[in-house]
Parts: sequence; C-alpha cells; structure tokens
Amino acid sequence: QSSVTLFGIVDANLRYTKASGQTLKQLGTDGLNSSRLGVRGTEDLGGGLKAGFWLEAALNPDTGTADATRFWGRRASVSLLGDFGEVRLGRGKTSTRLHIDDFDPYSTTGLGDVSKVYSVLGSGSDTLNRSDNMVQYFLPTNLGGFYGSVDVAAGEGASGKKMMGGRAGYKQGPLNAAVAYETTTGLANDKYKQFSVGAAYDFGVVRPSFNYSENKFRAAKQTIYTIAATAPLGQGQILASYTDSKANTAAEAISGVGDAKLLAVGYVYNVSKRTALYTTAAQIKNNKLGRFAVAGSPTVVNGAKSSGFDVGVRHSF
Amino acid sequence: QSSVTLFGIVDANLRYTKASGQTLKQLGTDGLNSSRLGVRGTEDLGGGLKAGFWLEAALNPDTGTADATRFWGRRASVSLLGDFGEVRLGRGKTSTRLHIDDFDPYSTTGLGDVSKVYSVLGSGSDTLNRSDNMVQYFLPTNLGGFYGSVDVAAGEGASGKKMMGGRAGYKQGPLNAAVAYETTTGLANDKYKQFSVGAAYDFGVVRPSFNYSENKFRAAKQTIYTIAATAPLGQGQILASYTDSKANTAAEAISGVGDAKLLAVGYVYNVSKRTALYTTAAQIKNNKLGRFAVAGSPTVVNGAKSSGFDVGVRHSF
Amino acid sequence: QSSVTLFGIVDANLRYTKASGQTLKQLGTDGLNSSRLGVRGTEDLGGGLKAGFWLEAALNPDTGTADATRFWGRRASVSLLGDFGEVRLGRGKTSTRLHIDDFDPYSTTGLGDVSKVYSVLGSGSDTLNRSDNMVQYFLPTNLGGFYGSVDVAAGEGASGKKMMGGRAGYKQGPLNAAVAYETTTGLANDKYKQFSVGAAYDFGVVRPSFNYSENKFRAAKQTIYTIAATAPLGQGQILASYTDSKANTAAEAISGVGDAKLLAVGYVYNVSKRTALYTTAAQIKNNKLGRFAVAGSPTVVNGAKSSGFDVGVRHSF
Repeated sequence: QSSVTLFGIVDANLRYTKASGQTLKQLGTDGLNSSRLGVRGTEDLGGGLKAGFWLEAALNPDTGTADATRFWGRRASVSLLGDFGEVRLGRGKTSTRLHIDDFDPYSTTGLGDVSKVYSVLGSGSDTLNRSDNMVQYFLPTNLGGFYGSVDVAAGEGASGKKMMGGRAGYKQGPLNAAVAYETTTGLANDKYKQFSVGAAYDFGVVRPSFNYSENKFRAAKQTIYTIAATAPLGQGQILASYTDSKANTAAEAISGVGDAKLLAVGYVYNVSKRTALYTTAAQIKNNKLGRFAVAGSPTVVNGAKSSGFDVGVRHSF
Repeated sequence: QSSVTLFGIVDANLRYTKASGQTLKQLGTDGLNSSRLGVRGTEDLGGGLKAGFWLEAALNPDTGTADATRFWGRRASVSLLGDFGEVRLGRGKTSTRLHIDDFDPYSTTGLGDVSKVYSVLGSGSDTLNRSDNMVQYFLPTNLGGFYGSVDVAAGEGASGKKMMGGRAGYKQGPLNAAVAYETTTGLANDKYKQFSVGAAYDFGVVRPSFNYSENKFRAAKQTIYTIAATAPLGQGQILASYTDSKANTAAEAISGVGDAKLLAVGYVYNVSKRTALYTTAAQIKNNKLGRFAVAGSPTVVNGAKSSGFDVGVRHSF
Repeated sequence: QSSVTLFGIVDANLRYTKASGQTLKQLGTDGLNSSRLGVRGTEDLGGGLKAGFWLEAALNPDTGTADATRFWGRRASVSLLGDFGEVRLGRGKTSTRLHIDDFDPYSTTGLGDVSKVYSVLGSGSDTLNRSDNMVQYFLPTNLGGFYGSVDVAAGEGASGKKMMGGRAGYKQGPLNAAVAYETTTGLANDKYKQFSVGAAYDFGVVRPSFNYSENKFRAAKQTIYTIAATAPLGQGQILASYTDSKANTAAEAISGVGDAKLLAVGYVYNVSKRTALYTTAAQIKNNKLGRFAVAGSPTVVNGAKSSGFDVGVRHSF
C-alpha cells in the first residue's frame, strides 16, 4: 500500500594516499559517489499537487559505521510540489553546494573533491555543504531551461547556522550556466559569504566546465578557479579537473589556509547502469601555511603536498 | 518473498515559541505526529496463530538526527498473536501511555502535548512514556468492546525501570472509557505510581473527552485534569484541550514542579489520507516554582509562561 | 525498479542468569540468532557476472538500541561475483569466524556461544569476530564440495586491525570438514594467531561435530576443544555442546583468562520456517583466574561459575 523506494549506494576502493613523507594503504570508501542508504516517496494529492519525503543516511562500508552525529545527515525533508515548484522543509544540500556539485566532475566526492580546498575561513559556518533547519523553494522545471532555488535556514540561537542563499541558472541542450550566493551568520554574528558562477558546454566529444567561487569572512578571502572536463571514452568517461585556490593575506592568517592547486584525473567504466569501476589520481599542492588534503590523506604539514590514488567499485540500488 | 512493510512519518513546521521574554524561531518538527521510520510485518503460522515484529525509530527532519541513545526507541518488539490476544516482548509504550494518548487530542505530541505537565516527581522513573524490557499482554479485540493490557518490565538491576501496569477499557460505538495504572520502582526502591481514568463520547459534531491522572512518589503528588474536544470542520478537524495540573506541597519542593495550566487549540487540514497541514497555538502557565514548557520553548524561569505557535505539514508513508 | 530485499531477525527471551551468588532476571535478546535489520541486493551484469551489496545492522529489541559504534557493524560490503567466485570489499565476518560458526551448534550466539571462552590474549586484536577494511575472496560454489576464502584487512595505521587469514574446506553430502587460519597485527606489532580445524557428519538421527582451535599471542596460548551434536526431534532439534578451553601459564597471567569448561544444551521448536521457540541452559565453569561468562551474566569473580537459562522466540523476516 505504501509507495516507498529504498535506495542507496555502496562505494569501496583500494586507496593509496601520501603526504609529507607518510603513506597510507586503505580500504577506502566513496571514491566515485558517497555511500548511502535512503528512503523516499511521493504521494499524488490531485490537482497537480504532490507531497514527498526524503530520508538519506551516510554510511561507510569499510567499517560499517553510519553518521554518528546526524544519522539522516545527507537529507531529511518533506516537500509539497506543484505547478508552483517545490517547497521543501528540513536538512539537505544548500543551493550553493548544488551549484558547485554541478560544475565539479567529481561532484565534491572522492579524491577529486573540489571542496577540499574550500575553507569556512574560521567563521564557524556549518552550512558549507548542507544546512539544518532549511526552508527551500525550487522553481518548477518547465521554465524553458531556467532553474533556481532560494534557501532560508533558522539559526535557532546557534552560531554558524542562520543562512540565506539561492541560485539561478539556465540549462538547455548542451549548455548549463548558473550563479549561486549564500550568506551564513557565523562567529560574533559576522557573515560568511559564498559567491559562485559556473558554466559547462557539452560538445559531445568533451564537456568542458568552469567555476569561479569567492569565499569571504571579515577580511579573509579565498578565490577559487576550477576548469574541468569530462569526455566519453568507450563504455565510460574520463574526468579531469584543475583548481587554483588563492587565499589573501588575511585568509593565510587562518590555521591551515593558504594557496593550493588541486589536480585530479580519473576514469569511470560503467559495467552497467548501476555498477561502475573507477580509478582516480589526485594531488593537492599547498603553499605557505596551507594544509588542504585529499580524502583519506595522512596528516599534511604546512605547505606540503597531499596525493592519492584509488581503484574501486560503486554499486547503486 | 518477505512480507515487510516500511512505514513512517515526516512532520516539519515553522514554529515560534516564547518564554520568560525570550523568543525562538525554528524549523520545528513533530507538531502533529512524531517523525519516524519503521519496519513491521506479520507471519501467518496457521491455526489462527500469527507472529509479528515491529521496529520503529524516531528521527528529526530539521537536522537529520536520529535517537542517539536508542535508535529503535519508539518500538522494538516481537509478538505472538492468536485467539488468546497478543503477547509482546520488547520496548514500547506502556499501557498508561496508550491510555493518555487516547484521551489527549494531541496524542502527547507537539505544542499541545499534555504529558509536558506530567512529572516523574524526582523518582528517576524511566517509564513515563515507554519502557524497556517489557512483556506485554493484550486482550483479543473481539470481546464486545472490552479491551485491556498488562505490562511487566524487568528492572535488570537498574533504578527506574522495574515496572508493572495495565489498563482496562470499553470502546463501543461513540463511547470510549478506560482506567490505567502503573507502578515503577524508582529511587531507593520507592515506587512511582500513575493512575488514570478517562472517557470520550463522539456526538458526531463534537467529541468531548476527559481524563484524570494522579502521579505519586513518596509524599509528592500531582493531580491532573484534562478536558478536551475534537470537532470535524470541513476537510479536517479542530482540536482543543485544557489541562489543570496541581502539585501538592511535597511535589512543589521538587525542582521545576508546580501548578500549571495548559491550553492548546489547533486545526488539522487533511489534504489527503496521508498528508495534512496543521496549526497549533498552546500555552503553559506555571505557578510558583513550576517550569513546565511547551515543545521547543526557550528556557522558562520559575512560575513563568511558555507558549508556542506553529504551522506545519505531516506526511505519512 | 530496485531489487532490494529488506530482511532481519527479532529474537527476545526471558532469561535468568547466575554468577558468584548474584542472579539476574532479564528480558534478554539474541538467544538463538542475533537480532538484526538488513538490506541486500544483487544486479545481473550479464556474462555470468553479478554485483551485490549487503548492509546489516545489529539491534536490541529489549531496549531499542542499535550498535552505537558501528551501525552497520554486522556487515557492510560490495561484491563482484562470477564464475571465478566472489570478491568482497568491506566489513564482515572473518573466514575464521565463519569456520567457528559452522562447527558450533549455537553459531557463536546466545547462552551457548562458544566464543565466550575465546580470548584475544591481551593482543588488542579487533578481528576475533568481524574485521573492518577487508578484501575477501571466496571460491566459486561449484568445485565439487571444496570451498574456501582468503581475507586481507588493511590496518590503516591502527593496532589490532591488520589481518590476513583464510579457510579451506570440503562439504559434500553429510560431511563438512575445514581448517581456518588468521593472523592479526596487535600490540607492539606482535601477531595474534588463530588456527582452527573442525568436522561434522550428519548421520540423520544425529549430527556430531568437532572443533579444535588454538589462539596464540607471544607466549600465551589457548587450546580449545569443542564436541557438539544436533539431533532432529519432532518439529525441531536438540542442540548440545561441550567445550574445554585450556590456557597455558603465560595466558593465565592475562586478566580474566584461565581454563574453562562450557556446557550448553537446548531445544529449538520450529513453529514455522521463520518463527521458532527455543530454550537453552548453559554453564561456564572457570578455573583459577578465569572470568569467562555466558551472555547476560552478572559479574563473575575469579574462578567462579556463570550460568544461564532462557526461553524465547526468534522471528525472521
């Protein structure tokens, strides 16, 4: 009687990482997509109106752990959908994160995850990725390619949680272009601000993409350029990205923050629609006091490199 | 091959609460029903006998958290069912809580939750709501309207857990009337005792209900009267309740306990069988040293008011 | 669209345990099988190749708790299966544990659990039962009765986790015979080693089984003999096992370790394929400084007995 879908992903790999002279051999996870288990469903309310819910939990197949802090931390929401679009209440990705995912061939996951060189610049922002207590509004999908969303999150008296943001974009045929903006009330009620603009064009043989992000808190500022490309090859595709993240002097005064370059390249082989084999090689090259690191890296000392290589399998259900 | 049902509720709201001069704007949860995810099933064993199980987990869609202490804390049980009734082993609601739910239009949930003015009176009882380690027996459902249950919970050497209780009632046509009693071994092996008697009659245009509860521990005693009513209105119903909770002098000596009055009124609009929009306004008015508070309230100082208002959506699956 | 199976077990009992003059009456769990909830599935990739996943969580129906450390701690894995066998990545039972389960009529569960007299001998090994970070290879199932598996687990820089092991066996008609070996890098990089050899033969009226295990760490050594039998009786079977666990002098120097004898006897009545009633009586008799205890036992003093009796129900779905 119940129209519920149980879905998920289990992604595990053999991973080798290296930083500052230390190496680590791991059974790693989440090389291509984040492992998860979810339950979702919609109900037709008549008159074009729908209600829906979505619960999605992170999990680590290497150790069997779940998210100890927020079990349903990937997404927990209830929605009303109609001709007007979607109103969604709960926890989930912010509009800015949805934007950055779209223009990162690694969708902010695995060794190539571009968000590894993004910093909250000491603001205490808890919304770099997802946000609690959100009301989100999404435009309907029939606006001739225009899409967009607006987020408002209640702070509920805690620092780093009160957030407003949104994105606006145009996706038609081979083109996708968008801007996103977000501001979160952090330390001492000062605002952490993220601005992003990105574009991608699918030429068929290759889909180059570009993104520029600015992160600001007080005088500190990061400017982050990413150029990337995906290209179909055989029964799969090549993924490559290059990111140049620059910190101004005020940002460099924050522990762990500095200039950094991230280079990632990999190949995904689709065994079937649900199962893929993949490999990724990535390196973050820090400058000065930067200590940015790839997923699963040993501890990085100031200004050192962090690199990793993995071969894995991703199974969706 | 497996006759398992996955079910649940996601309930989120925009909530405004106020107490002692402080206000809080929240993305609240559980305004009409508690959010949950569950798995349950039964197996026909032949000869009128059945086996069944029930696992039900609380969750908070505003932050994606689950119950960090007891993941399946709402209910975890295995049952044998037959002509004799049901024998159930595990954790779940006590008979007294099932009774109070029945005569509270808010089913002890949300801003109108009547149990917010119930106290364990310093006994350390862990069974006000649900109990661990229970063996429950439920009468069969074909006794001409008579229903009842008996609970026994093993203390397993811990204080506040050893419990015995039960309820007996009659529900036929528009009438429902019942009594419930429970005793839990608390601090220094003294007993915390709850007695409740309630009745409701459905006149069609309105269903008034009444409940009287006594909570006792040593010399401390709470006497709690609730009068309430539900009335169909359009595609929904009005809910209203008024509770007068009195503490004797010994009870007033316990931190946070005092006389209190709870008033709650709201409307539920059923968009469909599974989806409802709702609004509730409620206030607890404390006396002397009482600090009872509505759900999601800011901290209440002695003898102050705590009030709240919400507008939300509840989606069942 | 998704070929996912939701499965599980809820097992609860009335249990009475006794040790060193203390007794405990409990609503116990996991008397016959461990309570669990799982999700698993496979995908046909064509050409005889399959992908599969398995997520399995422990739970306690007496209190509604889950595994607070590793939610999916029973198993979390992704597999590729084909004519070559199965390659499995993730967390799960080690080959040695699979071996011991096979020759213990209680499958290392409940009051009769043979692993209660197994010790890691102060090595800090985390792989006595299951292992994180494993790559497992299982032989195909069509080798004329021969079966086997190989495990390799990454230590990832933590003590007690780096593991290698495997098992080899022959199971055809009434005969099952196997050996298993495992070595885990523990304290100060010294190895904890387990060797096991077991056999069982099903005569129809009775299936006797035998297992011998050696656990070693530095100079400490345990030698453990188990003789056991299962016999069909009516709509169920009798289970009985006797284990003699001996510790050498170096092992006896380790807190809680000593000689011990475990005797367990019980009956399982299969109400249906999925539901069983069961009863077990078991006793561990410690010698010298041993403090081994049956499941749910009160604290055991050096050299004392620990015993238990339960009557319960196990429901699978």
